[in-house]
Amino acid sequence: MLQGNAIIGQSGGPTSVINASLCGIIQQCLAQKAIEKTLGMRFGIEGFMRGDVIDLGRQQPAVIEGLRSTPSSALGSCRHKVKDDDFPKILEMLKQHNIRYYFLIGGNDTMDTIHRVEKYCRSQGYDLIGVGVPKTVDNDLWGTDHTPGFGSAARYVALSVRQAGMLARDMRYVDQYVIFQTVGRSAGWLPAAAAMARTAEDDAPHIILMPERAFDRRQFLADVKRCHERYGWCSVVCGEGVCYADGTPISASQTTDKFANVEFGAMGGSSAAMMLHRMINAEFGWRGEFQVCESLQMCAADRTVPGDVEEAYACGRRAVELAVDGQSGVMVSIVRDSNEPYRWSLGTAPLADVALGAKPMPDEYINAQGNGVTPACLEYLRPLVGPMPDYVRLAGNL
Amino acid sequence: MLQGNAIIGQSGGPTSVINASLCGIIQQCLAQKAIEKTLGMRFGIEGFMRGDVIDLGRQQPAVIEGLRSTPSSALGSCRHKVKDDDFPKILEMLKQHNIRYYFLIGGNDTMDTIHRVEKYCRSQGYDLIGVGVPKTVDNDLWGTDHTPGFGSAARYVALSVRQAGMLARDMRYVDQYVIFQTVGRSAGWLPAAAAMARTAEDDAPHIILMPERAFDRRQFLADVKRCHERYGWCSVVCGEGVCYADGTPISASQTTDKFANVEFGAMGGSSAAMMLHRMINAEFGWRGEFQVCESLQMCAADRTVPGDVEEAYACGRRAVELAVDGQSGVMVSIVRDSNEPYRWSLGTAPLADVALGAKPMPDEYINAQGNGVTPACLEYLRPLVGPMPDYVRLAGNL
Repeated sequence: MLQGNAIIGQSGGPTSVINASLCGIIQQCLAQKAIEKTLGMRFGIEGFMRGDVIDLGRQQPAVIEGLRSTPSSALGSCRHKVKDDDFPKILEMLKQHNIRYYFLIGGNDTMDTIHRVEKYCRSQGYDLIGVGVPKTVDNDLWGTDHTPGFGSAARYVALSVRQAGMLARDMRYVDQYVIFQTVGRSAGWLPAAAAMARTAEDDAPHIILMPERAFDRRQFLADVKRCHERYGWCSVVCGEGVCYADGTPISASQTTDKFANVEFGAMGGSSAAMMLHRMINAEFGWRGEFQVCESLQMCAADRTVPGDVEEAYACGRRAVELAVDGQSGVMVSIVRDSNEPYRWSLGTAPLADVALGAKPMPDEYINAQGNGVTPACLEYLRPLVGPMPDYVRLAGNL
Repeated sequence: MLQGNAIIGQSGGPTSVINASLCGIIQQCLAQKAIEKTLGMRFGIEGFMRGDVIDLGRQQPAVIEGLRSTPSSALGSCRHKVKDDDFPKILEMLKQHNIRYYFLIGGNDTMDTIHRVEKYCRSQGYDLIGVGVPKTVDNDLWGTDHTPGFGSAARYVALSVRQAGMLARDMRYVDQYVIFQTVGRSAGWLPAAAAMARTAEDDAPHIILMPERAFDRRQFLADVKRCHERYGWCSVVCGEGVCYADGTPISASQTTDKFANVEFGAMGGSSAAMMLHRMINAEFGWRGEFQVCESLQMCAADRTVPGDVEEAYACGRRAVELAVDGQSGVMVSIVRDSNEPYRWSLGTAPLADVALGAKPMPDEYINAQGNGVTPACLEYLRPLVGPMPDYVRLAGNL
């Protein structure tokens, strides 16, 4: 068994449960004889290369336990894409701190980093075990049923759309539409999760725009009109990365203002939801609002799904178990064993495969019109989002 | 004692606890001998004039009880400002339904409506008792220590700013600032409430912009720069109604894009936060984000403060007690009896006075620089927002 120190890093944007994974890794590292010191890299690989390292074994146990319910990336994070030039420096730091166990919590870029660092070390004759722990609210990671953090972000989206939908329904003689924008880049998992908000036919959301489908302005406005005719109001959920057929993001769409000046959205600090808002307003003259919560979806610790916290923590612990068992070059994965009741277990996926690419929404989860999800998608989402609150509705409130 | 039917209406934008007040009124009405039927006006006075009335006594008791934790305005709401021409129609409907008890849950426009309807009825020899129940997340209602709904919206703001602040701190090598926009129109109570998010000196928020103070672009950018130099990142909270000294809302400010075209924010669907985002980006070239949650702050039933729900419910019950006791032309008010421990009781305020105007933030709650709040303000806010969650921080995470 390899004897030495361990280091842990967090990478990319956080989730509400990324610190639960950190907690699991630290607690399990501290219990291992093979691991002498448990170190943390501040601000990911970027801080590590600068020597910004802290001794996690010196933290109060209550602080470590408290990570389980603390949002954001407690170690600090970065978005540094490791270049070939970085490897000698990284190896130097690994040697300096006698690090033999290397854990990163992140998405596919992060898995790629572990993979390449481990390969480089091997080529240089330095024994290093690298294991990845999955994390992203986008849920687009290959090799796992879902990613820790997705369920809690999905719940934030579903709760928001549900609550704002009830408000829009009850205020429909004042405002006629509400648009909620999710994060998730080019993956449609988060906007899709809004579908969990719906219990009755007229509930929000009415239209879901996922980046997996090209945006068609004419079709969109026809859908909005149809909803408005049917319900008297309309709820739209859109992924931030929705694009036109030619690949132009709708957030950067060319809209002319009242003075016929062309505006370029994203450049000036814009958003997809605002562009949709302007389109509806310009077409129908209705009042309405757009909601852009951005990273609030990634850090709402009071809205986490208990199962998501549990899985995130378990993934962290398992990474250490695999490492001291000598397994390297893998990411811990979550396997869905059964859907009802929901049962899961942990597996592994080779880092080399995970690093290759993102996992988009499968076609069978998106409806034929491209403006909503299928029953199969709801079945996939249900255990991850958790039970929605029971709100009442007065009889006769149609 | 006046014998007849009662009617209840909800008016204006909702709060997360407005239905708790509705629940209190209905349950107390159903227990009164003087009140025969308990009716609800759908979509406020606007629906009432159309005859859109439902019998609340026929609802399932479990549904009525469930209102206590259901967001939005379960009866439907409106923003209709009653005109003199409307009174004959309103009186006709009151007579048609034999209504002697008239309850509206709302803000100062709503209190004005009750006041004027009651006065008109008196002038026409029709006995009507009208009592108001306060409601607004803006907290700008005269005659009450605070309004039901404010505390829960304030908590939403404080939680969001706290969580997003931790995220911004830990991601500061990627993004340098975060801007959160609150609702609250021209009242600064909600942006001020963000101050509850701060426990350590470097915590968010760093700058709070309240509509009670004129916005000064130069001063703002200097503040942002100072925070960035001190902490490496910056958190800004702004009220949606912040204006320049000449009264122009910053959301409608003239910003030129990269092509030197003038953009008029609000007209094209803009926001104060987006304008601040563009200002910072243009001045310093940093990356950052703006968060515009809009009405989500007014309907997050899972983020209510228990005391707020309790007070909202109690205000509803008290309105009925006052009415059957023969008191008319008053609004139920909340009196703060002591701050630590927090103790409150119910009082009344004359509708005529409440209707007159809004209650701005007092000067002694705003700091001298006009970019934050005073200890007195924090003391006022603390019991309303409730205890903030205990998140941990790793030692050495500076």
